[in-house]
Amino acid sequence: MSLNTFGHLFRVTTWGESHGPALGATIDGCPPGVSLDAAMLQHWLDRRKPGQNRFTTQRREPDEVEILSGIYEGHTTGTPIQLMIRNTDQRSKDYGDIAQKFRPGHADITYWQKYGIRDPRGGGRSSARETAARVAAGGVAREVIRALLPGMQIKGYMVQMGPRQIERARFDWDQIDANPFWTPDATAAAEWAVYLDGLRKSGSSVGAVIEVVAKGAPAGLGAPVYGKLDTDIAAAMMSINAVKGVEIGEGMAAACLTGEANADEIRMGPDGPEFSSNHAGGILGGISTGQDIVCRFAVKPTSSILTPRKTITIAGEATEIVTKGRHDPCVGIRAVPVGEAMMACVILDHILLDRAQTGGIRGRIG
Amino acid sequence: MSLNTFGHLFRVTTWGESHGPALGATIDGCPPGVSLDAAMLQHWLDRRKPGQNRFTTQRREPDEVEILSGIYEGHTTGTPIQLMIRNTDQRSKDYGDIAQKFRPGHADITYWQKYGIRDPRGGGRSSARETAARVAAGGVAREVIRALLPGMQIKGYMVQMGPRQIERARFDWDQIDANPFWTPDATAAAEWAVYLDGLRKSGSSVGAVIEVVAKGAPAGLGAPVYGKLDTDIAAAMMSINAVKGVEIGEGMAAACLTGEANADEIRMGPDGPEFSSNHAGGILGGISTGQDIVCRFAVKPTSSILTPRKTITIAGEATEIVTKGRHDPCVGIRAVPVGEAMMACVILDHILLDRAQTGGIRGRIG
Amino acid sequence: MSLNTFGHLFRVTTWGESHGPALGATIDGCPPGVSLDAAMLQHWLDRRKPGQNRFTTQRREPDEVEILSGIYEGHTTGTPIQLMIRNTDQRSKDYGDIAQKFRPGHADITYWQKYGIRDPRGGGRSSARETAARVAAGGVAREVIRALLPGMQIKGYMVQMGPRQIERARFDWDQIDANPFWTPDATAAAEWAVYLDGLRKSGSSVGAVIEVVAKGAPAGLGAPVYGKLDTDIAAAMMSINAVKGVEIGEGMAAACLTGEANADEIRMGPDGPEFSSNHAGGILGGISTGQDIVCRFAVKPTSSILTPRKTITIAGEATEIVTKGRHDPCVGIRAVPVGEAMMACVILDHILLDRAQTGGIRGRIG
Amino acid sequence: MSLNTFGHLFRVTTWGESHGPALGATIDGCPPGVSLDAAMLQHWLDRRKPGQNRFTTQRREPDEVEILSGIYEGHTTGTPIQLMIRNTDQRSKDYGDIAQKFRPGHADITYWQKYGIRDPRGGGRSSARETAARVAAGGVAREVIRALLPGMQIKGYMVQMGPRQIERARFDWDQIDANPFWTPDATAAAEWAVYLDGLRKSGSSVGAVIEVVAKGAPAGLGAPVYGKLDTDIAAAMMSINAVKGVEIGEGMAAACLTGEANADEIRMGPDGPEFSSNHAGGILGGISTGQDIVCRFAVKPTSSILTPRKTITIAGEATEIVTKGRHDPCVGIRAVPVGEAMMACVILDHILLDRAQTGGIRGRIG
Repeated sequence: MSLNTFGHLFRVTTWGESHGPALGATIDGCPPGVSLDAAMLQHWLDRRKPGQNRFTTQRREPDEVEILSGIYEGHTTGTPIQLMIRNTDQRSKDYGDIAQKFRPGHADITYWQKYGIRDPRGGGRSSARETAARVAAGGVAREVIRALLPGMQIKGYMVQMGPRQIERARFDWDQIDANPFWTPDATAAAEWAVYLDGLRKSGSSVGAVIEVVAKGAPAGLGAPVYGKLDTDIAAAMMSINAVKGVEIGEGMAAACLTGEANADEIRMGPDGPEFSSNHAGGILGGISTGQDIVCRFAVKPTSSILTPRKTITIAGEATEIVTKGRHDPCVGIRAVPVGEAMMACVILDHILLDRAQTGGIRGRIG
Repeated sequence: MSLNTFGHLFRVTTWGESHGPALGATIDGCPPGVSLDAAMLQHWLDRRKPGQNRFTTQRREPDEVEILSGIYEGHTTGTPIQLMIRNTDQRSKDYGDIAQKFRPGHADITYWQKYGIRDPRGGGRSSARETAARVAAGGVAREVIRALLPGMQIKGYMVQMGPRQIERARFDWDQIDANPFWTPDATAAAEWAVYLDGLRKSGSSVGAVIEVVAKGAPAGLGAPVYGKLDTDIAAAMMSINAVKGVEIGEGMAAACLTGEANADEIRMGPDGPEFSSNHAGGILGGISTGQDIVCRFAVKPTSSILTPRKTITIAGEATEIVTKGRHDPCVGIRAVPVGEAMMACVILDHILLDRAQTGGIRGRIG
Repeated sequence: MSLNTFGHLFRVTTWGESHGPALGATIDGCPPGVSLDAAMLQHWLDRRKPGQNRFTTQRREPDEVEILSGIYEGHTTGTPIQLMIRNTDQRSKDYGDIAQKFRPGHADITYWQKYGIRDPRGGGRSSARETAARVAAGGVAREVIRALLPGMQIKGYMVQMGPRQIERARFDWDQIDANPFWTPDATAAAEWAVYLDGLRKSGSSVGAVIEVVAKGAPAGLGAPVYGKLDTDIAAAMMSINAVKGVEIGEGMAAACLTGEANADEIRMGPDGPEFSSNHAGGILGGISTGQDIVCRFAVKPTSSILTPRKTITIAGEATEIVTKGRHDPCVGIRAVPVGEAMMACVILDHILLDRAQTGGIRGRIG
Repeated sequence: MSLNTFGHLFRVTTWGESHGPALGATIDGCPPGVSLDAAMLQHWLDRRKPGQNRFTTQRREPDEVEILSGIYEGHTTGTPIQLMIRNTDQRSKDYGDIAQKFRPGHADITYWQKYGIRDPRGGGRSSARETAARVAAGGVAREVIRALLPGMQIKGYMVQMGPRQIERARFDWDQIDANPFWTPDATAAAEWAVYLDGLRKSGSSVGAVIEVVAKGAPAGLGAPVYGKLDTDIAAAMMSINAVKGVEIGEGMAAACLTGEANADEIRMGPDGPEFSSNHAGGILGGISTGQDIVCRFAVKPTSSILTPRKTITIAGEATEIVTKGRHDPCVGIRAVPVGEAMMACVILDHILLDRAQTGGIRGRIG
């Protein structure tokens, strides 16, 4: 509801600017008694951390998370959890020029027009650094999910860089953590490395598509109309910086299908209903089916590029701008752990919503 | 926050089942003093009404809206507006068979699994009839927008049916209201009519892509992180029945672009900043730029088809199902006014949010 | 959150004006599978209904509630429940004079100043008729509580009329439903009847204090800081028309006590902790203790009296006003079922919130 | 809405435990462009700070607030403001005994029963230290109000300690800041000092009543039903630790009045409507009248006293407890700045809500 908060019951409010003293997440509504310490969260933050290879920004941030509240003797107490990450490598000199000019494709101009003031240092609040807070919060959500539904797994990976898609036949879960692009297709990873090196050296950038899957979610999460599981997933992903499209299951391609091709037939399996296919992406009528929950989102290319671009100054004068400094040729790479974190937060939120309304009692089949 | 409510300040709660006595929308937070009567809302409902041509369901519903509260002497009073639409053509005999079987691709199975009870008559709450309430609420939002920002226009239209896209070069605003598909491309309309007749006669169905544009929205609507304008548009559109993907501006195709191609250059125009292109879909950093706000969403084909499909009963036994009765070969057609309504609600909500936080004061440029 | 909504998860939005076609409540978040029909709600509405004896307004309203949605075969489905009550006895001629004058002590002037428009017929939205919708919604909450926690009881009664308090030593539960004032003290009831007859005949009015008790609520409902059980009870009661004060347990008198006198000592009983007293009103740190939850609220006298009062017109001219028509000499009487309804809604809301966050798992003692 | 958040649009989430590393407030929805620095907030925190005289706890906390986000060059940017206060004097050895025993009148037992875990160090989340975060947030609200409505003043003061009330005839605004009890009655202050010294030396404690007034608030803040200004004030005050009753205007005493005595007559003054009295406490029908907004709340005596009290252990065994350590003989004293802070937050929230819905346009009178 609030401008910087997401979630109904597991509520995450992120705060902080790129070059302020710190940023973080205030988490309210976390179930009590869950084992949690900073190291568990650091694991996920380290995956998002910049400067890990030549394909991400060279800003050096340790991104060390401190837990300031809500934990006692290694367990959540049910009170608000405050997660703080200090900014250390702020080099604000890099950003001096952009205080007076609006970078095309950036939030500079809209922040100015809305608020009449903006923090230009590193993009301020619109910096992708904000997503570190999401990843930390997602780490908390993962631990709660692990306690409530030990079999669940949430995994994100890149399925497209620029116009180059992975080959689904080469999909290998074990590859995802084995290349700098979090992609399940090793051949694609090799090709993308060459492609992205070219873009990086020319000071250009490119977009990407990320897929996030939740495996082992029970049937029954979600609600019929506005509190739909897919509504909240779409909102969560679209709220990530630079995301321009979100798909569930077949996504935009569902438009091309006939009713015969699209409907997933149902049969009885040993543990309950099974489906012959998953065009629905694990969600029917806003409620999970028990299949894999599958979403994808497109990340636009960063607009911080070395080619001069036409723009205007605050005074309204025509000018050009080149964004120097440290940037990501494909910000989609670092969006992978962010998408996972958002999925974890949404799923946990709906687990809590569901047990609130239904008490976890389910309509039996068979 | 609530399961069946959308909006932060202009809050719409829809209620009602397909075959209950009535359905409607409870609107809270509407500004006072806006001219409003039932005829203004009926105009939009009539566009969504079933049975208007051979391409939509033959269910006959007058969809007459009554205003039960919130209006005095033809103006909104600022108190809740209750909009009620009586169901008249309920023919529940059509749906007898499906009480015991789950239709593939429908919400039948997930409702059952979540709630342990469901109203099978016409799909109950999961019926597309719920969208009539959205269209009525959108009609209220339109009148308030007209009072606050007279220059704004919100228009939806179909840009793809099945695999067949419109030709952007043939785009003609005046065509949109001149064909049964609300498409701006007259040639496409003619081709689609033949195509859809074929699908209709064979008892099949197909998906579609709808585009909705808001023209004349001021710069400054939205917020940086979760209360982003694009987040709320994505949520609003994904909350419509059968929608599987949402795009802003370039959408999923943004992944294919380079930074040079994607960033919309800025220049000074007579009335303020102008942009050389609109890849961003009118939104940067979650906040409107003053350009056209452009979104698209994909509607899957209805799963109510005449071809038998494999499924199970509540008892878990294998069976087949054919959905007889009255159905839409392309539900995307009737999603056009629904998408417009959702856009109107989101835009108005953000106008109110913006004047709450900023008082409408803007950072000047030039 | 919304202007006309209360509740976090069991969310009730009331709508409607005194002399519009209807009023009602939209309930979202109700658990599924609970037995419910209109007669169950009518039982509670009949207790609040005007014109039942000479001490309440002679407006004749059957207050018949219709359930328009959310029920299938006599059970809640988990979808929104729409409750509608038609207005029948509207006699708007009674209210002609007050369209141009502001009644002292009424919302007339503030509605006008805020909205620039108001429905003067019977007070419009500010009429106590709005509370019929609350009572209907409270009836739903009661049925859900009965299903979840069969031992709970919620009971309201009058403990003070004007300056006359009941004698606690004469408290008799069985008396509450046996007199027109819902008071547990039969002697007080007899005295109040004489007292109120005098006020009624002279066209005056008087205030009252209502106490509402919830028995059998489990320990653990509520939350530490803003989502406190007592916070929500205070808000719920203060939101009732004409209420000016709310107390939990000792209430305002807690100020007079020493720490020794105030703290309820704890001992172990056969079913868990017991307390030697209940100064806390069943709530410590915002969370229920398992004792009776006790609140009181003061209802001011209605300002609709036969004595002329000085006021102004919309044009700002000095004038006098006498409110003719049908009114209540002690509106506190009809506030008793309303207070019960609000307590039921708050308790149920917190049952749902609690099982969302904690899953109903409790810290064991002993 | 959330468990630890208050406010609709100016949303404050407090976090932190008494003996954790820090506590604070996350503020979302603050208007941009308001002058703000830490010193402005420190002013208010210093009023609440413990250990300032012999009548408040001797815990030594500098309560220095750091602003971690949301400010650029001395002005709010419209993004979340994070306020952090480090805990320094934690002496957790004082609290060793109470980890296994429940203190009567404290939240110990209910936290345990709800969550199955609690931080016993200094009361953890239930400590009155949490109110430091509220005071800091209230300081932000005050600065925004100053920018929007320069004439407004919010002032709290003690009107009763134990059974001893102030004499209204001796009310002197200038006295409030001149004595350790924030009371406007110098004679009462002198008497209370003697009285409280006696209680302090005997290890006892006593309750108090605080009154908070907002002067200069415009007519039109609030809403008719649940979003009433008085509803939100009641909730805000009841959410403060140890508060057991809340009153608006006449409060509980309104029950004793007749309609003639209670209704504030209206006349036209030079700047608009005026009232002959203010029994309503500046609020009619949930909406401000333009008069002083007046509320009172009762604070119970702290239960941390030197007299042994009967209680049980977590194991359910009977025992006694004496709360040693540093405590307040009258916690009501430090509740004065907290009440002011809550009033400031509520008023600002309603200013924002009002300009959202009405745009600040008012119904003219005269």
